[in-house]
Formats: sequence, structure tokens, C-alpha cells
Amino acid sequence: MTIITLTSDFGLLDPYVGIMKGGMLGIAAGAQLVDLSHDIPPQDIDEATYALKSAVPFFPDGSVHLAIVDPGVGSDRRPLLITTERASFVGPDNGIFSFALDEPGSQAWALDQPTYWLPEISRTFHGRDIFAPVAAHRARGISPAQLGTRINDPVYRPPLMAERLGNGEIHAHVIHVDRFGNLISNVPASWLGDAIWICQVGGERVAGPSQAYASTAPGELLFLISSNGTAEIAVREGSAAQHLGVSAGAQLRLWIR
Amino acid sequence: MTIITLTSDFGLLDPYVGIMKGGMLGIAAGAQLVDLSHDIPPQDIDEATYALKSAVPFFPDGSVHLAIVDPGVGSDRRPLLITTERASFVGPDNGIFSFALDEPGSQAWALDQPTYWLPEISRTFHGRDIFAPVAAHRARGISPAQLGTRINDPVYRPPLMAERLGNGEIHAHVIHVDRFGNLISNVPASWLGDAIWICQVGGERVAGPSQAYASTAPGELLFLISSNGTAEIAVREGSAAQHLGVSAGAQLRLWIR
Amino acid sequence: MTIITLTSDFGLLDPYVGIMKGGMLGIAAGAQLVDLSHDIPPQDIDEATYALKSAVPFFPDGSVHLAIVDPGVGSDRRPLLITTERASFVGPDNGIFSFALDEPGSQAWALDQPTYWLPEISRTFHGRDIFAPVAAHRARGISPAQLGTRINDPVYRPPLMAERLGNGEIHAHVIHVDRFGNLISNVPASWLGDAIWICQVGGERVAGPSQAYASTAPGELLFLISSNGTAEIAVREGSAAQHLGVSAGAQLRLWIR
Repeated sequence: MTIITLTSDFGLLDPYVGIMKGGMLGIAAGAQLVDLSHDIPPQDIDEATYALKSAVPFFPDGSVHLAIVDPGVGSDRRPLLITTERASFVGPDNGIFSFALDEPGSQAWALDQPTYWLPEISRTFHGRDIFAPVAAHRARGISPAQLGTRINDPVYRPPLMAERLGNGEIHAHVIHVDRFGNLISNVPASWLGDAIWICQVGGERVAGPSQAYASTAPGELLFLISSNGTAEIAVREGSAAQHLGVSAGAQLRLWIR
Repeated sequence: MTIITLTSDFGLLDPYVGIMKGGMLGIAAGAQLVDLSHDIPPQDIDEATYALKSAVPFFPDGSVHLAIVDPGVGSDRRPLLITTERASFVGPDNGIFSFALDEPGSQAWALDQPTYWLPEISRTFHGRDIFAPVAAHRARGISPAQLGTRINDPVYRPPLMAERLGNGEIHAHVIHVDRFGNLISNVPASWLGDAIWICQVGGERVAGPSQAYASTAPGELLFLISSNGTAEIAVREGSAAQHLGVSAGAQLRLWIR
Repeated sequence: MTIITLTSDFGLLDPYVGIMKGGMLGIAAGAQLVDLSHDIPPQDIDEATYALKSAVPFFPDGSVHLAIVDPGVGSDRRPLLITTERASFVGPDNGIFSFALDEPGSQAWALDQPTYWLPEISRTFHGRDIFAPVAAHRARGISPAQLGTRINDPVYRPPLMAERLGNGEIHAHVIHVDRFGNLISNVPASWLGDAIWICQVGGERVAGPSQAYASTAPGELLFLISSNGTAEIAVREGSAAQHLGVSAGAQLRLWIR
């Protein structure tokens, strides 16, 4: 039973997600549908990429990942399939899958075979009309070459990277704020070694990395290694985002104490 | 593996939806459960109908659609099954499935066979006690005649229709505001033909239909054909509902430019 | 196909739930995953217990219930498996499953076999690294004794109980406020018998129990038996929580009229 994951900015108030699922189950009966998130902020490609990049490695080989955050729907942006050694990705060609292009054996395909789409294509809902049907056909084993044509120029959106300056400082960014108000940064844990660092963000400074949330008193700021292996700023049993008044995109500076 | 869709105003904060799913999987092991929406505004039958009517056509034949928005729970409103050539619908007899009654071969059945219900029926949660079990029994092939008795007088809630006036004007309504703030109207695209129309809503006027969101500058109002084939008012990369200060029920006037 | 239910305070904005599902499907292909709620208020163990206790009895025998509300992640609180005659429970040892410990034949196991975990254990996401993999291994039939070691001292969090005073009064609490603003109390229906009671809450008094929401005029306060068999205060087509200005934890007093 092939897995198809779904990521979108459609929310769950409207029937859009259900509509796509109905269409996919008509093509790939018994496919296992797994929602990653449908609460991506409207048209926020970076947040969709963050969710996908965090979750995809944990899915079994052969999974198909459908993602639709599509400010360009109705323009001439191409519909895209990316295949890697482990997975397939279906969605708009707007850079949402850039991390997959960095994987070994990745190939990009422009979806241009309407046989595998709905008969009528609307101007505003390619998720229903093109992407979901193609993901379902891919899940039941239709080859990339049947679904589209190889291309060499998919849109690539370089990730926001942390920088190591000559003086040993690290300049970085908050790339995601989670439900708990934890600030996930783009500083790889491997850069921190065994040293004690000072992390400055939103006008405050905190030393770390600490070992775990529980190593601090409730309400206190701490700096630790997040579950995806980067520096994270948190408040135990509280919200660092609220405490510091910062959001995704905020700058961090780190230096050895 | 039969599909059962779920639509309700239960939200996902409370365990109500999980409880219904547990009960259904005990009756129809392996049924494929698909949520349409559980964020229907409390007791808003029209929004539930809109979600169902939009999504149902995309599901495979034989699907069972369970929907519970039930201001009359505990009163003497009947529990209902509607069957059409393509699908089954289970929920309260309050008009929520009126669109299905308009389909070819539709039949209505009052659910009156407690054999297929939970042994004890609460006053406030017929979703758990009656509707979910019946939907699951229907999904595993129990016939309508075993589940209930044919009736000729299910509640019918006529849809809000757009009107064409003698002078060529169209008077219509916003029937749904989606997550993006797009205003979905009840004006069928077929009424618009190839002409350019002026659409007036919330004190502003906009010409259209445009071809797609991307055909306008970000932040600008546009009028286009929605993915379900009716006129839609949108703001590119913004919210038309917020821009115009209108919500579901707002009036539209359209005339040829 | 074994059922695994998921309950957490992770929300659906972040990819945490999808990550756990991917991991579980890699271990127990074809498992049927059912979300109970991921909108448990952050770190609110009592609300998680309420959701589980309400839903678990409706799931088929053999289901596995994964629940993660875990203020102590990263401390030395143990990872826990509880087995009863009907089900398995996997999550942190913080009392979240206390109701299961009260069931016949319940046994508690400290999870101490890293063979069944992810190879690397983060400090902050034991749901992904320990609990989800163990739940999936349990779903595919791995025995409790392979997954852990019997213990006699799991954390037990006694439920908040209503009290019957010598003068016949009942003192009780609101233990949950649902999406509709209904106040679910801990007064068992069996305590009320056939008498008419006055229920005082938030400075107002209402007689009952009434038969159903529909037995009162819209907007009026009523007192009835909830779907899980306890006294409930509601406002027909409105919110009792808003009407009375009360929330979970509020006190109730009841006496025979």
C-alpha cells in the first residue's frame, strides 16, 4: 500500500483537501494518505519546504509527497515531478522541493501528459486537477517518463544558511517557530562542538546548549539542540517567541563564552 | 476497501471525531476514513452542505458520506439515509443532504432499526450512537432496507440561487468564504458567456472574469471563475473578504460592461 | 490491520505528527492511524487523559493508543507501556494513562529496549524517537516483555472526583469545556436518579436534568446528561462557557429541588 503525504496551505475549514483525497482514492484505491500539514501560512513556500524537509526522511522508501503552496497557480509556472532514489515529489515548480534536488540521483520532470490529469483543468485549483491525480498515478506505479518530460532547470530556491565569520561568531536566522513558540534556527549542532556558546536573539542572551527543556526552571529561556539537529531557543513550559517578541526570520548571533 | 467520509461541526479539539472513528472501525474493519471538514461553523447546515456538495463528486462510486451538523439532536428529527446511484449519505434529517435528493435515483430512508445502532442512545451524541454505526454497516454492504424504511418527505432545503433579471443584470450571493478570503458566489460560469462583466460587491466594482490569480498584481481585487464553476471574487496574495469587509451571505450584482 | 490512535499537544501546524506517522508506517506497514486530538493545550495532561478516557472504549480490542503530552521530556521520567485486556498504551510515565491502570488486568512496563527505538535519541522529541516506534512495534505484535520491563510504580494521577456531602449536596467540577462551550462535569448520572436537581455554576442556577438541547429555547441555559454519562451544562445553540464566564476547573454545586 503506497503512502501519499499531503502538504498545503489549504487549511481544513474548506473541502479542498477532501476533494483531492477523493480524487486520489479513485485512482489509487487503498493508497495510505498521510497529512503533513495543511496549515502552512498562505503562499509561504519556505514554511512548506521546512515541513517537508523535516518529515520526508522518516517515511518509507517509495512514498509519494504531494505539496501545494502555489502563488503562481494559473500563470505559466510548470507542474513538476521530482524523483530521488527514495521518493517522488509532486507539486508546482516554484522551489518548494529544492531540498530534494540536492539528493543523490534526483531528476526533475515537467508534467505535460494530460492523460493523467482530470479532463477539465480549472484556473485556480491545480491541486485537484493536475497534482493530486499525478501523485496517485505515481503511487500506483506509473513511471516518471509516462507522466512528464525530463527538465534540467527546475526552480531552485537556495535555503537560508547560517554563516561562520572569521572571528568565530555565527550569524544565523530563526527559520521556524513551532506551536510551542520554540525558535528553530539554521545553526547545525555540529558547528557548536563541546563549547559553551552565548546565543543572542531578540535582545536577550542565553548560554548553552542545555541538555533538555527539563534542565531549566519553568518560564526560563534556554538554548538547546532541536530534534532536527539545529540550535533551538525555547522557554520551558512557555513560548520563546512570545517571551522575546520574535518570529521566523529573526536574526541570531552566537559566540563562544 | 470502502471509503467513509466525515463532515461535522465537532472540531478537532474534542475527542468526538475519534470516538466515531473507533466505533466505525469496530464495525467495518479496514474502511478508509477521510475527513472532509470538522470545522464547519457550529450548527451551520448551509456550510456543511457546501463542503459536501463540492467534494462528493470527486469520490469513487460506492463511498459513504457521514455528516453531522445537528441543531435538533434530541428532538424528534429523524435519522436519515439517502442513497443515489453513486453514493450513500448518513446524518440528521435537516436538509444537509438536499443536493443528493436532486440526483438521479435518489431514495430517502428513515433509520429505524436499532439493531444497527449502539445499544444505548444518548440524548446529545447521535453521531456516535446512530449515524456512525449505520454508516459503517452501510459501508460493509448492509442494504438500505435493512437499515431503515423508505420515506417520501425528507427535509429539503432549497439552495440559495442567483437570479437573472429582465434587464440582463444578475443578482447573486456569496455562499462561502474560503481560508484565503476568496468569495465563492452562486453565479454559474455558464451564465457569463464570453462577455466582460462588472461585478459589484461590498461597495466596489471589478471587471472580469479574469483568467487566473496571477493575471493581476498582488493586492488587487479580481473576479474569476472558481474551481467549482461559479464566479469568485479574490485578491491576489490577499483576502477579498477582508479587503471588502464582507462575509457569506453578502449580495453581488453583475452586469455586462 | 491494527489501529494506532494518536493524541498529542503538537498541533497540526508543525510537521511533528506527520513525522511520527512516517516512522510508524515504516515499521508497521498498513497500520490504521487514527488521530484523536493534536490540539490538547500544551502540556495539559488532564485534557489528554480526558480525550483518551472518552474515546478508548469505542475502539476495537487490540488497538494501540499513543499519547504524547510530555512536560518532562529530556528529564529522567520513564517511557511507559501499559497493557490491559483490551488495549495497549504508549507514552511518557506522567500519569496520562492513569485510567488504564484502573482497568482489569492492567500491567505497566518501563520501555528500556533501544532495539525498538530510533538509533539516535534526541533530547526533545521522544514521540518520534521512542514512543512512535514502540507503538508501531507493539501494533505488529511485539510482546510487552520484549519492549520493556514490568514495573509496579507507574505514576498514577488520581482523577478529580465529585463528592456527595452529608446534607445530600453534590460538590463537583467542570472537567472539560468542549468546542460548543458545553461544560462537562464529573457528576455521574447515576447519582442524580429521578429527582429534579438545581445545579449552581458561575453564579447561576438551572434545574434539570433536561432531556435534550432541543427541550429549551435557543440561548437558554440547561443542565442535562452528557454523552459520556455525566452532568453537563449547556446553552442551546450557544456557549455555556461564554454565557457563565467559566472554564475547566470551575466548581459546581447541586442539590435536590
